[in-house]
Amino acid sequence: MSEWALLGDAHVPKSGWEFPPDEYRRRVEGARRLMAGGGIDCLLLTSEKSIRYLTGYHAQEWINQTYSRYVLLPLDREPIAVVPTGRVPGFQSTTWIRDIRSWLAPNPADDGVTLVTDALRSVLRPHGRVGAEIGPEMRLGVPVADFLRIRDALEISCVDAGPILRRLRMVKSPLEIERISRAAQLTSEAFERLSRQLAPGKTERDVYNLMHVLLVELGAEKVPYIVPVSGAHGYDQINVGPTDRMLNTGDLLLIDVGATWRGYFCDFDRNFALGRTTDEFRSAHSLLFEATEAGINCIRPGRTMSDIWRAMTKVIAPDGRLNAWHGRMGHGVGLDLAEPPSLAEGDRTVLEEGMVLTLEPMVTLPGAGGMPWRRMVHEEDGVVAKAGFDLLTRRAPSTLPVV
Amino acid sequence: MSEWALLGDAHVPKSGWEFPPDEYRRRVEGARRLMAGGGIDCLLLTSEKSIRYLTGYHAQEWINQTYSRYVLLPLDREPIAVVPTGRVPGFQSTTWIRDIRSWLAPNPADDGVTLVTDALRSVLRPHGRVGAEIGPEMRLGVPVADFLRIRDALEISCVDAGPILRRLRMVKSPLEIERISRAAQLTSEAFERLSRQLAPGKTERDVYNLMHVLLVELGAEKVPYIVPVSGAHGYDQINVGPTDRMLNTGDLLLIDVGATWRGYFCDFDRNFALGRTTDEFRSAHSLLFEATEAGINCIRPGRTMSDIWRAMTKVIAPDGRLNAWHGRMGHGVGLDLAEPPSLAEGDRTVLEEGMVLTLEPMVTLPGAGGMPWRRMVHEEDGVVAKAGFDLLTRRAPSTLPVV
Repeated sequence: MSEWALLGDAHVPKSGWEFPPDEYRRRVEGARRLMAGGGIDCLLLTSEKSIRYLTGYHAQEWINQTYSRYVLLPLDREPIAVVPTGRVPGFQSTTWIRDIRSWLAPNPADDGVTLVTDALRSVLRPHGRVGAEIGPEMRLGVPVADFLRIRDALEISCVDAGPILRRLRMVKSPLEIERISRAAQLTSEAFERLSRQLAPGKTERDVYNLMHVLLVELGAEKVPYIVPVSGAHGYDQINVGPTDRMLNTGDLLLIDVGATWRGYFCDFDRNFALGRTTDEFRSAHSLLFEATEAGINCIRPGRTMSDIWRAMTKVIAPDGRLNAWHGRMGHGVGLDLAEPPSLAEGDRTVLEEGMVLTLEPMVTLPGAGGMPWRRMVHEEDGVVAKAGFDLLTRRAPSTLPVV
Repeated sequence: MSEWALLGDAHVPKSGWEFPPDEYRRRVEGARRLMAGGGIDCLLLTSEKSIRYLTGYHAQEWINQTYSRYVLLPLDREPIAVVPTGRVPGFQSTTWIRDIRSWLAPNPADDGVTLVTDALRSVLRPHGRVGAEIGPEMRLGVPVADFLRIRDALEISCVDAGPILRRLRMVKSPLEIERISRAAQLTSEAFERLSRQLAPGKTERDVYNLMHVLLVELGAEKVPYIVPVSGAHGYDQINVGPTDRMLNTGDLLLIDVGATWRGYFCDFDRNFALGRTTDEFRSAHSLLFEATEAGINCIRPGRTMSDIWRAMTKVIAPDGRLNAWHGRMGHGVGLDLAEPPSLAEGDRTVLEEGMVLTLEPMVTLPGAGGMPWRRMVHEEDGVVAKAGFDLLTRRAPSTLPVV
């Protein structure tokens, strides 16, 4: 396969490469092994993370949805990138792809569709099968209408590339773990510094801004997620915020953070009580700490996600009764804030060394303060090791911190 | 229409609403007018920005691709949101939608597909037409396979909602312009402060970090885009960076920034020369300044994007000869860093008061320093006013600043 020459030991990575050639060789070999096993002749990739993972193209420009970018990874031919003209130098300097085709974009009448169709035709055998990002947890990085035009022009059979991409990305290399660890460490430090600045009278938005500055000063590359939620009675959701609500003595405050270091996320949260707290919050926090401990102690290669979920659930609901809002309690972390597998009862993924997971147990509390029910969550990130789970975050205190 | 009651003057916005009810009423009325004109019975929305624009749901959780979220906006019935159970409180507190249906996610076997199919069936007449985010510059916010299952289960005819969404979002309200202006002002201030900290010996990555801290300290909410590029001979691309390259005396440095204030972007760049510079860079910068000036002077309601493009091109290439890399020279800015219309020869969009645009002229320079050609760009943001173009950015200096 010709690109092995390009990826060979003799190849000196250009300054724009984010990992050495071996990292990509392993990823691409892995992809092709899984493609061969699944009868897939070519991967048709369009999303930021899939393309970054397999080719090395790391660019902030993905937030610009005017443009489409395609990468074809055939089973036994040279890969092809099809990108707008302006993106060619960036693909040349950051990726190992040699065959880069381009068009002057935007061109709504044909934004790469003909080029991709022709490229696919040249690498596919008749009745070839293409793997595309169409299934669960996948997002296409191009307009659906363009994707369907390509698919229909070729009469190819199109299957979900998700299982392959998921499988590949789930187990992290040492270089990837190093990056996640850096993100988790700097965020741990930011939480510690933040805890000394929290006080009644500040608003949730103040907390957001304080944490944002701390994270960036400590070297976070991107901070797509800082959600503070607060209330005298706690909180019922952890996805929307901040508001202009002012913190009061006695409040429970949760801050959930997703920050990156060189493209890789950490994802964890911390709870704080303002000035004083209640027995209810104290014991919920202890339960969460113990559930996390049970999860950590259960993790080792060979166990399943379902096993870990059950170990944590046994602490939270010794009687086995969970309520209707009780979904998964953790997930994978990497190039995405949340990626497979799921820490859920139904997820039978077998743990392997190198998987990075967040454990995120949840306790539900009866309704109060206008909320029909309340929740309390807690979260730690770590990596599956030979004989257990190595935490990447600084462990939260066993008792709810009062600040 | 029942939700008018909910959106009526008497309705007091909840603390989580980001705009007063009138803003949403105008948007929804506009959408329905365009739907009626286009024979569309229902919009099926799945992406962050479409849903935020029409319902008010503003949440950082969209980076989590494990979950799907759907909003149905029928022509003459009550809208329906279909979201994971955990997202219900967030939809309740931030949006005016009353009919919120949910499922316990993730459930890869049926992540909302049945609920959405049933909901669509209940609001559609037989042979109804659905508008979905499938065309140019659109991205579906859910897995394609799920979208196709919904479409095929109903045998609906599915057309691109892009023209409607584009048309609506293109003209900004005063409240939206205020936010874009805040983003542009704080970024202008950050550029000014940064210029005093630039010096040979710093790397591109140092520049990234310096600018990142400045922006966040000055109140930027999100900073998804800071791209510094540099070189003794300038640059040939503006999408990939930073690298660890160290700045030297004589370098040309470009920094392009996309930062938000309460969800709304600014998007502009600045050039700097380190210590000294060349006549080539000086005159290219002057040309860019003058091209921007020509663009600004040409803008007024009634002119087209194509008119502005020609006015700018006349300065850059008086002989009318542009090279093959010369695409568009600006675009809309708003909830997205880059949104329609395009400042391109072929874009006949007629300017209206309230459109926010970036003018982004480009000059190409002959190859040097290993680059087959080089480019130089410059950028300003502004809003189309009654009789011209009101800049939202602090205008760059007319001569290339040497720092």
